[in-house]
Amino acid sequence: MSGYFLEDIGAPELRERTSVADELAGAVRTLISSTVLTEVDAVAAARAIEHIEAAVEILGTERLSEDSFGVRFTSDGVKRNWGNAVIGRRNPVAPPVVLNHDGAKAWSEFELGPAYEGPAGLVHGGIVAAILDQVLGSAAEHAGHPGMTGTLTIRYRQGTKLGQVRAEAELDRVEGVKSIAKGRIVTSDGVTAEAEGIFILPRWAREASAAAAAEKLRKSLSDG
Amino acid sequence: MSGYFLEDIGAPELRERTSVADELAGAVRTLISSTVLTEVDAVAAARAIEHIEAAVEILGTERLSEDSFGVRFTSDGVKRNWGNAVIGRRNPVAPPVVLNHDGAKAWSEFELGPAYEGPAGLVHGGIVAAILDQVLGSAAEHAGHPGMTGTLTIRYRQGTKLGQVRAEAELDRVEGVKSIAKGRIVTSDGVTAEAEGIFILPRWAREASAAAAAEKLRKSLSDG
Repeated sequence: MSGYFLEDIGAPELRERTSVADELAGAVRTLISSTVLTEVDAVAAARAIEHIEAAVEILGTERLSEDSFGVRFTSDGVKRNWGNAVIGRRNPVAPPVVLNHDGAKAWSEFELGPAYEGPAGLVHGGIVAAILDQVLGSAAEHAGHPGMTGTLTIRYRQGTKLGQVRAEAELDRVEGVKSIAKGRIVTSDGVTAEAEGIFILPRWAREASAAAAAEKLRKSLSDG
Repeated sequence: MSGYFLEDIGAPELRERTSVADELAGAVRTLISSTVLTEVDAVAAARAIEHIEAAVEILGTERLSEDSFGVRFTSDGVKRNWGNAVIGRRNPVAPPVVLNHDGAKAWSEFELGPAYEGPAGLVHGGIVAAILDQVLGSAAEHAGHPGMTGTLTIRYRQGTKLGQVRAEAELDRVEGVKSIAKGRIVTSDGVTAEAEGIFILPRWAREASAAAAAEKLRKSLSDG
């Protein structure tokens, strides 16, 4: 699979990169909100654009040769999907949703500002779906049953107001290569949306895991 | 409903605002990609952040008093949901998806860059869902049967590669206050995801429409 990298960097370097990612993406998130809310005229906007282009130029002096961040691992197994559109800490499109895990459960509390609007004053139904897809998938993965989304069903109970939001999910059951997770979005109004997701272990991962099992068996036979 | 505005601006003013929105949001979209892909160190990142903060300061000199853009109409009925997280032209989180309509069908072709990644090299399943929610809802609305999303079901057939994407949807049928729309995402690999959405006319809209019907009836009786 292209786009999956092993990066052998140590803890101090990882800390430095984490801090750069958070500060830079944080500044861009503020700029995104300002862009949605500004009422400046064309002249002022042009001055802002000059600064934005200057920032782009600086950031472009050293950049990845690939067209996406991909998913990275350090040699001690730390996974960095920092480009992820929902949880990616260095992706300004992501709120980001920072997940907590407790066994088969995953949850997060975060703020959704003006950049996530759909109907006036409400979170876009599609953003609700995007967050639930991620939280359900992460719950299944963390419980040891990762997979790509096969089917995702969202039931919207009421509008989700922009502002403070809680998302939570748990692995419900496993049926062969399918993991079924359930979850919901909760605000001060109560549950606003419920989701069920079926996550399927990709064939390449199954084959890799079958090959690993066969190798283990072969070794135990040759050792015995 | 708060957040829905009537703004009585003329065509030249609307053209100016459109151009400012496109240029500013376009520059921020480029900055978002740069943020995902950059490998500059902390010193260079700090210089970029200075420019970003300068842009935020300029844009903040005049801003909306509300915390979201809302949904605006001009007096000739032009709808501007520019803050929308999927189709909003002045929202840098939105690709944006620019929709074409033909009766009950809606479609769009657009590019999804590194900011929309989920699995390495692939569009986030949640972003696929977000786009389908919007395109299905817009198809139903444009066919004269608008509604808030009630249920959204996405079936993922294969990964959606980052890059050029087509999204399309059509109103399938109407059952009372429910509009049912179907749609799909298509890339050079073929159909990657299929969706069905049930959109429900909110009670306040039904009551408004019932009140309008009653008023019409009352008038026709008093006129007659």
